[in-house]
Amino acid sequence: MKHTYARSDMDVVKSQKFTRLCSLTYANTDGEARSERKWEMVQRTTRTIPVEAFKRSQAPIPIDAVEVCATVEKAEGTFIIVVAQYRPPLDAISLEFPAGLVDAGENCGQAAIRELREETGYSADASSILSVSPPLSTEPGLTDSCCVLVRLRINGDLPENQHPKQLLDDGEDIEVLLIPVGDTQEALNALLKAAGKYEAKGQRAVVDAKLYTFMDAMAHMHNSHCCSAL
Amino acid sequence: MKHTYARSDMDVVKSQKFTRLCSLTYANTDGEARSERKWEMVQRTTRTIPVEAFKRSQAPIPIDAVEVCATVEKAEGTFIIVVAQYRPPLDAISLEFPAGLVDAGENCGQAAIRELREETGYSADASSILSVSPPLSTEPGLTDSCCVLVRLRINGDLPENQHPKQLLDDGEDIEVLLIPVGDTQEALNALLKAAGKYEAKGQRAVVDAKLYTFMDAMAHMHNSHCCSAL
Repeated sequence: MKHTYARSDMDVVKSQKFTRLCSLTYANTDGEARSERKWEMVQRTTRTIPVEAFKRSQAPIPIDAVEVCATVEKAEGTFIIVVAQYRPPLDAISLEFPAGLVDAGENCGQAAIRELREETGYSADASSILSVSPPLSTEPGLTDSCCVLVRLRINGDLPENQHPKQLLDDGEDIEVLLIPVGDTQEALNALLKAAGKYEAKGQRAVVDAKLYTFMDAMAHMHNSHCCSAL
Repeated sequence: MKHTYARSDMDVVKSQKFTRLCSLTYANTDGEARSERKWEMVQRTTRTIPVEAFKRSQAPIPIDAVEVCATVEKAEGTFIIVVAQYRPPLDAISLEFPAGLVDAGENCGQAAIRELREETGYSADASSILSVSPPLSTEPGLTDSCCVLVRLRINGDLPENQHPKQLLDDGEDIEVLLIPVGDTQEALNALLKAAGKYEAKGQRAVVDAKLYTFMDAMAHMHNSHCCSAL
């Protein structure tokens, strides 16, 4: 980078229950020259971090949610667990990794195991955790919302995972899809085919970018590297 | 899904130049029973779609930007092109796929080729396009913002790609990183190492979730499927 940057202030323009629209000021320093610039942003209000903490550098990097990338290994093959639900901002059925907020007193791994159990019924424990990412931005030009990606490997042959039952709150309506992870582009094609099923019923479906890029990379690796090496 | 859903109204609560905070109403229909619910959302104002179009089902699925997943093939190996820039909402250096808005009269493939050229200097043409995704949501609980992922394969040995020069606007300050795509977890580790370099200079770095999940899937495939098959 040629310049150095630091946030110098932030105003709350409008606050609702879950979201606030903010205007922030940051300083762009280029050697001796220093200029102040404005930016619009959206924050989630569902955090323990007070809004004042975001006024100056270094503003906190929040963790709003965990995203759970879980593979289930069964006798008949390996599957990625995907959830489908209506998302009002998109006015569409959204296909995503299981996800949710981190509760007080939980770390990201624990939150991932709990959310997976609630949304899909599948059981995992600490030994199922393959990796926990650093905080990841979701739309860095628009919001400071961040998630953490937790990868889990689930034993689908365990008795408790034979007939998984969701533990949903009243009003939650989530469908669980198992997308087979096979050779070549099978996973990506199965994901797009699942989206097409909702469309055939008159509800539009949109795939989340984090899930899509994961599936696309799997297809890419098979096509370009692995399969050519085999 | 047990119920069917449809948006029934949307109010603009507060509008700024680039973003507006909205309150929307959607109907949840369960057989005979129908209930209306509220949701908060954020929209980008930088669209040709008028705000009235979002008031009822089926609300349009917008395409706000293209994300460019480009691999460069050179004599010394294959690399993914990553850009780093200060993102005011995060108050941090953000590592992302090259990305940008789709201009009037462009399709997503053309926008991807243009944005890659401007932000990184690398040249591609229509024959470089490997795939174009459907619209993908970035944070479906918070916003209807969507992107399209365009995958490009670049010939790094072409004369015009030997010494690529960025075409940046005044005020744009973007660093280009080439992340090697190797065996096992090399790409993911190289990405996290690149983030660490900014932190060593006193600027925090955050990786975008779309880029991370792509790199993580590549590591995952090498570890779990390909390498075990080799």
